[in-house]
Amino acid sequence: MALRVTVWGENVHDRHDPNVKAIYPDGMHETIARAIRAGVPQSAVGTATLEQPEHGLDDARLAATDVLIWWGHTAHHKVADAVVDRIQARVLDGMGLIVLHSGHESKIFRRMMGTHCSLRWREAQDRELIWTVAPQHPIAAGVPHPLALERHEMYGEFFDIPPPDELVFVSSFSGGEVFRSGCCFKRGKGRIFYFSPGHESFPIYHDARIARVLCNAVSWAGPSTSPMDTRKSIHSPTNWFAR
Amino acid sequence: MALRVTVWGENVHDRHDPNVKAIYPDGMHETIARAIRAGVPQSAVGTATLEQPEHGLDDARLAATDVLIWWGHTAHHKVADAVVDRIQARVLDGMGLIVLHSGHESKIFRRMMGTHCSLRWREAQDRELIWTVAPQHPIAAGVPHPLALERHEMYGEFFDIPPPDELVFVSSFSGGEVFRSGCCFKRGKGRIFYFSPGHESFPIYHDARIARVLCNAVSWAGPSTSPMDTRKSIHSPTNWFAR
Amino acid sequence: MALRVTVWGENVHDRHDPNVKAIYPDGMHETIARAIRAGVPQSAVGTATLEQPEHGLDDARLAATDVLIWWGHTAHHKVADAVVDRIQARVLDGMGLIVLHSGHESKIFRRMMGTHCSLRWREAQDRELIWTVAPQHPIAAGVPHPLALERHEMYGEFFDIPPPDELVFVSSFSGGEVFRSGCCFKRGKGRIFYFSPGHESFPIYHDARIARVLCNAVSWAGPSTSPMDTRKSIHSPTNWFAR
Amino acid sequence: MALRVTVWGENVHDRHDPNVKAIYPDGMHETIARAIRAGVPQSAVGTATLEQPEHGLDDARLAATDVLIWWGHTAHHKVADAVVDRIQARVLDGMGLIVLHSGHESKIFRRMMGTHCSLRWREAQDRELIWTVAPQHPIAAGVPHPLALERHEMYGEFFDIPPPDELVFVSSFSGGEVFRSGCCFKRGKGRIFYFSPGHESFPIYHDARIARVLCNAVSWAGPSTSPMDTRKSIHSPTNWFAR
Repeated sequence: MALRVTVWGENVHDRHDPNVKAIYPDGMHETIARAIRAGVPQSAVGTATLEQPEHGLDDARLAATDVLIWWGHTAHHKVADAVVDRIQARVLDGMGLIVLHSGHESKIFRRMMGTHCSLRWREAQDRELIWTVAPQHPIAAGVPHPLALERHEMYGEFFDIPPPDELVFVSSFSGGEVFRSGCCFKRGKGRIFYFSPGHESFPIYHDARIARVLCNAVSWAGPSTSPMDTRKSIHSPTNWFAR
Repeated sequence: MALRVTVWGENVHDRHDPNVKAIYPDGMHETIARAIRAGVPQSAVGTATLEQPEHGLDDARLAATDVLIWWGHTAHHKVADAVVDRIQARVLDGMGLIVLHSGHESKIFRRMMGTHCSLRWREAQDRELIWTVAPQHPIAAGVPHPLALERHEMYGEFFDIPPPDELVFVSSFSGGEVFRSGCCFKRGKGRIFYFSPGHESFPIYHDARIARVLCNAVSWAGPSTSPMDTRKSIHSPTNWFAR
Repeated sequence: MALRVTVWGENVHDRHDPNVKAIYPDGMHETIARAIRAGVPQSAVGTATLEQPEHGLDDARLAATDVLIWWGHTAHHKVADAVVDRIQARVLDGMGLIVLHSGHESKIFRRMMGTHCSLRWREAQDRELIWTVAPQHPIAAGVPHPLALERHEMYGEFFDIPPPDELVFVSSFSGGEVFRSGCCFKRGKGRIFYFSPGHESFPIYHDARIARVLCNAVSWAGPSTSPMDTRKSIHSPTNWFAR
Repeated sequence: MALRVTVWGENVHDRHDPNVKAIYPDGMHETIARAIRAGVPQSAVGTATLEQPEHGLDDARLAATDVLIWWGHTAHHKVADAVVDRIQARVLDGMGLIVLHSGHESKIFRRMMGTHCSLRWREAQDRELIWTVAPQHPIAAGVPHPLALERHEMYGEFFDIPPPDELVFVSSFSGGEVFRSGCCFKRGKGRIFYFSPGHESFPIYHDARIARVLCNAVSWAGPSTSPMDTRKSIHSPTNWFAR
């Protein structure tokens, strides 16, 4: 059965900033979607964007999504709380969630983490080196060690997230900063992966090595099949589980 | 310097249910506060309750609190969101938070966890046995293995919380259920401990062994002194940290 | 490509104890092997036992093994240290390792853990209930919650292992004890799963629900493909990674 | 009651290499011991070295040690296995262990970890920046963020250790490498801290900021008081724990 992936793009820079448009003429979400289509066999990949009704994420769409990828930056505050509630509920019910780069300050990521998700940043010309610290992790499979990005925005510690359940990548920057750049979290029946590359003004998502990480992450985050109902506490009389 | 502890009690059952009143004539919060005063040297312990203005937790009070203990059950929805926002901010800034029993469904605990925090439950006469799975943890110091509660409400798995950063206690119940009953979380600059005993209709907080756990937890959760400002992302020009 | 699994059985009780022989006429290892063959598509499953030269685990055999399953009990001390060294090296180089039941005190498990791996035990007629505490984990897929074993040996806490990297199952016993019965560990490039069922005098490995756990675990532990060489520290001149 | 600390030094470079002798005229262990004495109130700090009988760590000495600090480099193979067995047993029974720098390849650290503990290295003139990723951790209290070492040996990933139970520090180096430089592990009743500074040819242990980390670590690792006997599995008849 197909793995149903929805790539959500804020789609603001992509339409209004000529530099970003030049790099991502079809929008960042479309470039990411193509990478998943090419790299994850049997995936069915669609996109959704901020300006669509309900940001393209109504109940039916989320119910039909196994893994949601999230890229946002300048318009986090425009995402409706009701949509955030809905995404959170779906993640806890087993949908995978992959949050990219500036999505660290999105409502949905902060909601899932319970923390500020703040960090240090610098838009300059730092070289970023992404190091694997969990070689046995499926998200690291086939990823160079290090993976060098010649120019990227700096994201540095302290990154205000819960201690990751699994830490996969740690980055360094020319300026000397470090960053936990690939982090796994288990929340309810769902799995979450945060990955810090790609700033909109660099062609990061055209990079085959980055695409490899995204495809690995989609496969890893693929939905839980657990039939448990975790939405509410359950009254359980003595011997409820016995035949 | 004194460790400033605030015990927050919902104080509803304690005033309206004669059975609870008989067990906790001064309110559950007061019994807990006495246990901390007796067991944590140099502690300065006060209380706050739901019916007070701002639930007794205005900015000044929270700023003067190193560790907040939370017991709530029947009136979670009456806690103002603005107060929850404030508590969350203080925890992320270094205040310890200890959430007790039915506080698992409080707004503040669900906010900090990002999950439903649902579980299984049964008000019966189960015997609960609390087992230590982290003997090196300061919260387990001096706690019997097992600690037996002759009669207690059953709380069972699946408990919808993030994987604890440290798992200290696991309970079993006569009915056969298990529960992760003592769980540590690190969030921002703060430390959180969830401890599942005590239901209001049993004299759990009068038990010296339980008091020992609470005192250990208060000492463990004691405030972070980190000067980091984590409230917002910080622009950091190249070499910002060099002299 | 086939997933190459080797099931190692101590094969002592199975040959010498008529009760065990009655339950496992072909040996426990053979019953386990059949379960994997039936449940893991494209697996190539063989067995090895203590009494074979080098316990059936010479260099060539280990090199051709992707996941090793280990059941031992009464003859841990008869396993040659040189073979233990070899297994440890293969796990660190990416082979999966699944340790069952009384294998908790095997040389290889204690070697990988660095701890005593001691526990409490009782051969009686306890009912064991296995509860899932990580519903999103692939090893829990399709496993009943709880999974009840009507009669089993009791294994109880404190279980002297490192805090598991992922805790999947927690068991309770009629006698009131609890046990971390399904534990994941990442070590080097390899993955390790400890699963506490099945004592030799109960037909645990004939149980389809247990077989499901074993098959899930084999798929999860499947070998790392990382090309990193971790056997020795590596001298790395400045810019070693640049082209 | 005093916290009894033993600083173990290999004491080979310190006696035979004039450069090291110039930096540490009394031996590295003595410099470290002085830092602990000055910074941990009520500590009783002694030293032990490789060339002493039983390396200065006979049964009586270990029994009287609450926290053991370990620095070794060139003579790991000269440490007797019987002494390693003894240290391991004491750690599992509650003694704290702090392993420094090149101690990553010591017998005792590899024994406790179960992994190769290999890494990348370069003796050059890299600047090391040590970043705090756990601001709430007691070992990070009062430590600058970042803590800059103008010149230090490079230690880089992949560092072949189990995923740390708590990750406190991550370092970057001028050459671009990163390293998990401050790692906590819980093993049995004991606590272990690995801290990667200081190479013998730099005056790292004279640095007050590094001394602060060591003192914090000693206080954190301070001995467990748990009365549990974890040395052997314990037969436990039904109701063993009831009065």
